[in-house]
Amino acid sequence: MPEERLATVRPVTEQEATGKVAEIYADIRHTKGVDFVPVFWRTLATNPTQLELVWTTLKRLMHPEATGAVSRLDPRTREIIAVAVSATNGCSYCVNSHTAALRKLGLDDETLGEVMAIVGLFNMTNKLAEGYQIQPDVLPPLPETDGA
Amino acid sequence: MPEERLATVRPVTEQEATGKVAEIYADIRHTKGVDFVPVFWRTLATNPTQLELVWTTLKRLMHPEATGAVSRLDPRTREIIAVAVSATNGCSYCVNSHTAALRKLGLDDETLGEVMAIVGLFNMTNKLAEGYQIQPDVLPPLPETDGA
Amino acid sequence: MPEERLATVRPVTEQEATGKVAEIYADIRHTKGVDFVPVFWRTLATNPTQLELVWTTLKRLMHPEATGAVSRLDPRTREIIAVAVSATNGCSYCVNSHTAALRKLGLDDETLGEVMAIVGLFNMTNKLAEGYQIQPDVLPPLPETDGA
Amino acid sequence: MPEERLATVRPVTEQEATGKVAEIYADIRHTKGVDFVPVFWRTLATNPTQLELVWTTLKRLMHPEATGAVSRLDPRTREIIAVAVSATNGCSYCVNSHTAALRKLGLDDETLGEVMAIVGLFNMTNKLAEGYQIQPDVLPPLPETDGA
Amino acid sequence: MPEERLATVRPVTEQEATGKVAEIYADIRHTKGVDFVPVFWRTLATNPTQLELVWTTLKRLMHPEATGAVSRLDPRTREIIAVAVSATNGCSYCVNSHTAALRKLGLDDETLGEVMAIVGLFNMTNKLAEGYQIQPDVLPPLPETDGA
Amino acid sequence: MPEERLATVRPVTEQEATGKVAEIYADIRHTKGVDFVPVFWRTLATNPTQLELVWTTLKRLMHPEATGAVSRLDPRTREIIAVAVSATNGCSYCVNSHTAALRKLGLDDETLGEVMAIVGLFNMTNKLAEGYQIQPDVLPPLPETDGA
Repeated sequence: MPEERLATVRPVTEQEATGKVAEIYADIRHTKGVDFVPVFWRTLATNPTQLELVWTTLKRLMHPEATGAVSRLDPRTREIIAVAVSATNGCSYCVNSHTAALRKLGLDDETLGEVMAIVGLFNMTNKLAEGYQIQPDVLPPLPETDGA
Repeated sequence: MPEERLATVRPVTEQEATGKVAEIYADIRHTKGVDFVPVFWRTLATNPTQLELVWTTLKRLMHPEATGAVSRLDPRTREIIAVAVSATNGCSYCVNSHTAALRKLGLDDETLGEVMAIVGLFNMTNKLAEGYQIQPDVLPPLPETDGA
Repeated sequence: MPEERLATVRPVTEQEATGKVAEIYADIRHTKGVDFVPVFWRTLATNPTQLELVWTTLKRLMHPEATGAVSRLDPRTREIIAVAVSATNGCSYCVNSHTAALRKLGLDDETLGEVMAIVGLFNMTNKLAEGYQIQPDVLPPLPETDGA
Repeated sequence: MPEERLATVRPVTEQEATGKVAEIYADIRHTKGVDFVPVFWRTLATNPTQLELVWTTLKRLMHPEATGAVSRLDPRTREIIAVAVSATNGCSYCVNSHTAALRKLGLDDETLGEVMAIVGLFNMTNKLAEGYQIQPDVLPPLPETDGA
Repeated sequence: MPEERLATVRPVTEQEATGKVAEIYADIRHTKGVDFVPVFWRTLATNPTQLELVWTTLKRLMHPEATGAVSRLDPRTREIIAVAVSATNGCSYCVNSHTAALRKLGLDDETLGEVMAIVGLFNMTNKLAEGYQIQPDVLPPLPETDGA
Repeated sequence: MPEERLATVRPVTEQEATGKVAEIYADIRHTKGVDFVPVFWRTLATNPTQLELVWTTLKRLMHPEATGAVSRLDPRTREIIAVAVSATNGCSYCVNSHTAALRKLGLDDETLGEVMAIVGLFNMTNKLAEGYQIQPDVLPPLPETDGA
């Protein structure tokens, strides 16, 4: 059995970070209001471009206020989407961290259970629709046909 | 090339429905406020038990008021979860019908785009976390350890 | 590294269960013929509605005799479907518990290996069909066209 | 909108097939008892090695009698696994062709519905187990510990 | 049956594009060397932030030379990853567009077939490893343990 | 909590292997240039037919030179496909073993990060294309229409 390890690469510690990576680490701590940089980000830092692209996208979408932008979704809804996607994909790291985020936002067991039950339901109906190859008959309205 | 078809089985038409299936068809029309029974339900009706189990679950979770229950999530959030799961699974029928439901609830292109962008983002981060096998370091708090 | 934990929420112990949850726990023990309630069900119990919906569906489909219903599939085939789906989704909890169920039903290594080989084969062919975007040319017969 | 097409490559017609590909085409027709080679196989034939590897595996597992081998699973169970996996993966080509195969074996709507309901159920429970990150507590028995 | 449609929203035509969206459309045409903006990008444009985030990431990773960056992977390898991921996810739009990109780069049927065969193989082995819950015994070397 | 275990079945040790299984074990050690048989193969060996089918396919595709065949892809590209698929599927065993293989081939953190970033990107765009149900408009050229 292998020893416990954090990832398939050695994450970049906060002490080792320099330049662009150090700047992003500081931005993560500040934007998320945490006092350490989660191992997810320290793993991406093994390729600084990757770290920058993913952080820029996540910061803009999940912390819009930090970029001067306005979201049409409240923080709880955004984190619920994160948990719904992560549960559907079975991502252990992401389920844990986004459930933690929902807890910080005050979500209780009862409401989390409702989220999960709905996630489970649509995973069931999705596979039924695919398993029978059911063709769409309820379509969203379009304002007008695209001429392209 | 095959002729156009609705599913791998012949869906049960509203005219053909009798007994339990006819009752559920009426309940679907009434609960959803639609004037036809979508082909998804008419396909499940080829096995009435299946129709009943799935409709009971969906009605309770997505139309709680129709069962006398109270949801801690608003209808828009519930449909956003449906779209997030269906997009992640790539289910054509479900993406179409739940986007249609979100339209009925007044969701505009801009907000749908934000939902989709977040769905896309977490599909990306989920696969990065898995692709590096990153071990969870941010965990949701537990009130106390389970003694089981 | 985090301490060992059972789930992202604290499961409801058998001692804590009351009312509807206690009734379902008793039904699970009785229906499954086990002397403890598996942590899967105790986790769902953090939202009793979720526990009830999922247990009702699973009991009806996997323990039909306990509901007075008759299945057209034998127990072994039903558990083989459970393992095939769980392997395809990569669900650790479910692969373990349904492999255990197949063992109880007397399935040996050789037969489990045949199930797995077929699961693996169709995961391969599914992705080849999708990777080449091959259009269906072998379709199941329909008794007659749906007029809807 | 693009014209209708069979795949992202041009499948090898039966007239064009020569050598190894022609031999495998003949074996497919004979083993499956069909009078044409389905487009799936004709697409794989654009790389003859691929055709050979996939056909050898599928023939051995799904038509064992044609290779002189004995299966511990009956043909219906093997095709049920194929449909369960294909529904879970949402593979249109495969859902269609394996539902057709189940029809040939005499499976009726009611039984197909039971298969689908169970496939849907375990897609739901799989995602609940992952969405809560529930740790396995029901494990299959092992005869003895591996000393490796 | 519904009329043919391009997406669940009406894509933004090139004529309608203004401001930031028009700029990105021009950049897409220029960077990709195409004389129209594919409907994928015109759909994302219904939320301009989404368009910008996704295009910035894709341009940096798939057209690094256009951003003054250097890739350690050649264009063919990058597109092979795109096709491998898209086939595994069963994404019709993406399989088509990235197979087209590989054709432009000169990839022939034989080599595409080798890519697909390997994609199919690892989808098979992935599910076998998950279906048996095999624990990792071959781990990538780490330079030293992370002290975090 | 369960004791540590290698798989849901007891893998066949090298000492126990006889006949066909022993031959394949020897071939694995020789072809891969390793001094032990990884637990993946020893697990498949619980059904010798499964072991033979999977090893024959993997050997032909990933070690073509050992079968006298020629690959149009270099070993690094082949392993990159393995990692891309395994990351997309979230297979822990496979991500670890194929990242190890890429390390042996000299891939550094920076390049692995580029592979991962591209894998993440296309998981994002795949789900956007599906989430909007975008219809293909960029198709690979076909030499001529199939007359079938």
